[in-house]
Amino acid sequence: MGHYNMFAGRSAERLAALSDGVFAVAMTLLVLDLHAPAAEAVHSEADLLAALWLLAPRLLVYMLSFMTLGIFWVGQQTQLNFVTHSDRHLSWIHLAFLFTVTLMPFSTALMAEFIAYRAALVLYWLNILALGAIVFASWAYLERAGLLKPDVAPGIGKAVRRRVIVAQALYALGAALCAYSTLASLGFIVLVQLNYAVAPRIGLLQRL
Amino acid sequence: MGHYNMFAGRSAERLAALSDGVFAVAMTLLVLDLHAPAAEAVHSEADLLAALWLLAPRLLVYMLSFMTLGIFWVGQQTQLNFVTHSDRHLSWIHLAFLFTVTLMPFSTALMAEFIAYRAALVLYWLNILALGAIVFASWAYLERAGLLKPDVAPGIGKAVRRRVIVAQALYALGAALCAYSTLASLGFIVLVQLNYAVAPRIGLLQRL
Amino acid sequence: MGHYNMFAGRSAERLAALSDGVFAVAMTLLVLDLHAPAAEAVHSEADLLAALWLLAPRLLVYMLSFMTLGIFWVGQQTQLNFVTHSDRHLSWIHLAFLFTVTLMPFSTALMAEFIAYRAALVLYWLNILALGAIVFASWAYLERAGLLKPDVAPGIGKAVRRRVIVAQALYALGAALCAYSTLASLGFIVLVQLNYAVAPRIGLLQRL
Amino acid sequence: MGHYNMFAGRSAERLAALSDGVFAVAMTLLVLDLHAPAAEAVHSEADLLAALWLLAPRLLVYMLSFMTLGIFWVGQQTQLNFVTHSDRHLSWIHLAFLFTVTLMPFSTALMAEFIAYRAALVLYWLNILALGAIVFASWAYLERAGLLKPDVAPGIGKAVRRRVIVAQALYALGAALCAYSTLASLGFIVLVQLNYAVAPRIGLLQRL
Repeated sequence: MGHYNMFAGRSAERLAALSDGVFAVAMTLLVLDLHAPAAEAVHSEADLLAALWLLAPRLLVYMLSFMTLGIFWVGQQTQLNFVTHSDRHLSWIHLAFLFTVTLMPFSTALMAEFIAYRAALVLYWLNILALGAIVFASWAYLERAGLLKPDVAPGIGKAVRRRVIVAQALYALGAALCAYSTLASLGFIVLVQLNYAVAPRIGLLQRL
Repeated sequence: MGHYNMFAGRSAERLAALSDGVFAVAMTLLVLDLHAPAAEAVHSEADLLAALWLLAPRLLVYMLSFMTLGIFWVGQQTQLNFVTHSDRHLSWIHLAFLFTVTLMPFSTALMAEFIAYRAALVLYWLNILALGAIVFASWAYLERAGLLKPDVAPGIGKAVRRRVIVAQALYALGAALCAYSTLASLGFIVLVQLNYAVAPRIGLLQRL
Repeated sequence: MGHYNMFAGRSAERLAALSDGVFAVAMTLLVLDLHAPAAEAVHSEADLLAALWLLAPRLLVYMLSFMTLGIFWVGQQTQLNFVTHSDRHLSWIHLAFLFTVTLMPFSTALMAEFIAYRAALVLYWLNILALGAIVFASWAYLERAGLLKPDVAPGIGKAVRRRVIVAQALYALGAALCAYSTLASLGFIVLVQLNYAVAPRIGLLQRL
Repeated sequence: MGHYNMFAGRSAERLAALSDGVFAVAMTLLVLDLHAPAAEAVHSEADLLAALWLLAPRLLVYMLSFMTLGIFWVGQQTQLNFVTHSDRHLSWIHLAFLFTVTLMPFSTALMAEFIAYRAALVLYWLNILALGAIVFASWAYLERAGLLKPDVAPGIGKAVRRRVIVAQALYALGAALCAYSTLASLGFIVLVQLNYAVAPRIGLLQRL
């Protein structure tokens, strides 16, 4: 019969609303790891500044994860804007995507705590890889299932796929750098993210 | 007079928005139980991998609960899509539904902690049972109160009810397996959830 | 000049969306106080059941607060449904309302912890009183500022005001019972809430 | 090619929805720092009242931060109401804005803990400054990129810019007072916030 599956999960608006909610909570939870220093350890302005200074690497890792979530939020939104409606398969592809989003605070906390360990960095990269793979699969499904609006230009699918592949190649290159040093890895990934967030008008970078 | 009850709680859009918010928070809170290992216990890459490996069962339970919430999110959305507007009774049926959703992080944490105990598994199942019962009651109310859009095909109500009953029968069967072993119980429930999430095109499974 | 105040905060949709978000987070955070029992203290099914049984009062207080939030969510939604647009004053009235909503998890935790203390019960009641007072003020402002849709029947304002006043009188009566016993107080308030949530078709109760 | 950047991030509705989510979570998380007193330390009503009294400064700081978030929520909403659609640059400007919003619970907790330290107050002020600077940059970008609705009156841009500059000048003045006393600083900032929230009809204050 499978009848239920033919009319279930068709609202692209609710899929977008759930996604915005999950992204909003994940983005804000990231910061919960940023604790105010313990009052007992602080006896002067200098103590407080020193304690805050120790939080700086954690803040950087947090910014990085916020940027990652921002990039994938823009990416998902861009796809859903092109859709006439959803269906149950698309709903589940994006639920898998959101599951991967909710793992981000954990991967981030792990990397902030164990920044010198390759295992933490590789796990962080696997999280980004999973996000990219699902975004790629989502577009493939959209095209195959005929869920795209009729006025979507043919070049757009190519541009979406190209963006995901180039970005993931850069992330993989960044992750590979951890054979040399996890900090080099992290620095490279930050630069890639910054490029996608700021999108400078520089010929070579715009081609990425 | 009871006048207030005649014009209160009529926005199906706000009911959907509140639901998306509660689901989003509950889905993301589930992961808060996944803590990075303590830094003091980790002195090598092998230590870190071993500590992460210990988290694997917890991650599986978390995935299971995310799937459960996903299934009921799709189910609720499907119903609200068929509705012209809400009323105060429907609002309260869905508030009860959302209350049951918010208990999911607790039931999940309980099962992740006490996976070998039947009491934890039965409580988890009761949570799923309550979700199913309210979804069932919601559809019955929709039909009785005439809140359905006029173009809803007559077969849809039958399909919705059939889906809920078959699913709950399978969950009950899974829960009953705990007389034999809680792990067998859990494994069976995971398979049922996977079937509903992935919806493979296999004749027998599609009939469920 | 005050020019900014004339065009700021006019979106009733965003006010509703922010409210749904705050309610969703507050409703879900309430449950965070429900911790799984410590694994060390549990050595048998009987131990686990006993530990869960100790959580029952906490669960009841949580249900009570969820109902309170549900009642005020329905109340606020009902008002915003009648509005053509918002303005900055209405935005701030509802921001004050949302502030009071965010205090609910704290008041609830306090009462769950100190159920035998009058101070905890009175604080909880003050929280409900503040919610009611702002809902009342909001409607008064809506009428005065001419933000209501033209097709809102004249009797509706009267019904809204009547509902708030009767409910608050009952809550105040419940709170006053704490001179006798805090549990009597709590029980009475639970009954009032249940009446508003379930809305039984009983003549006398429908008049409340 | 840069093609992707031309069609990415165009939904102003999803930007608003994500923002409402982040604001809702940040506003509600602020209150998590308000813990019920430890049960062991309370043996009488007087003990409980005394313990609650100690929470009063924390509640005030929390109210202040809620007001700050409210002011910037109204400010952002006002801008997005004037927009025909978003684009990827605007999306990233507002993601930076939301990042700054998520830092607010941390800055608030820091100031509540270290109210006598200038470093905590200056950091809090820097958070407000960053929010104001991004709101200012957002409007500048809106005008430059031609994203404003055609019916937006020319005086509105001037009013928006004036509001941000006057408010930030007052906040800077307040922060500067910490050379004298952090409490004077805090008191002054509270008065500025109250003025923007309540918007009294007093000639001089309306000109701010």
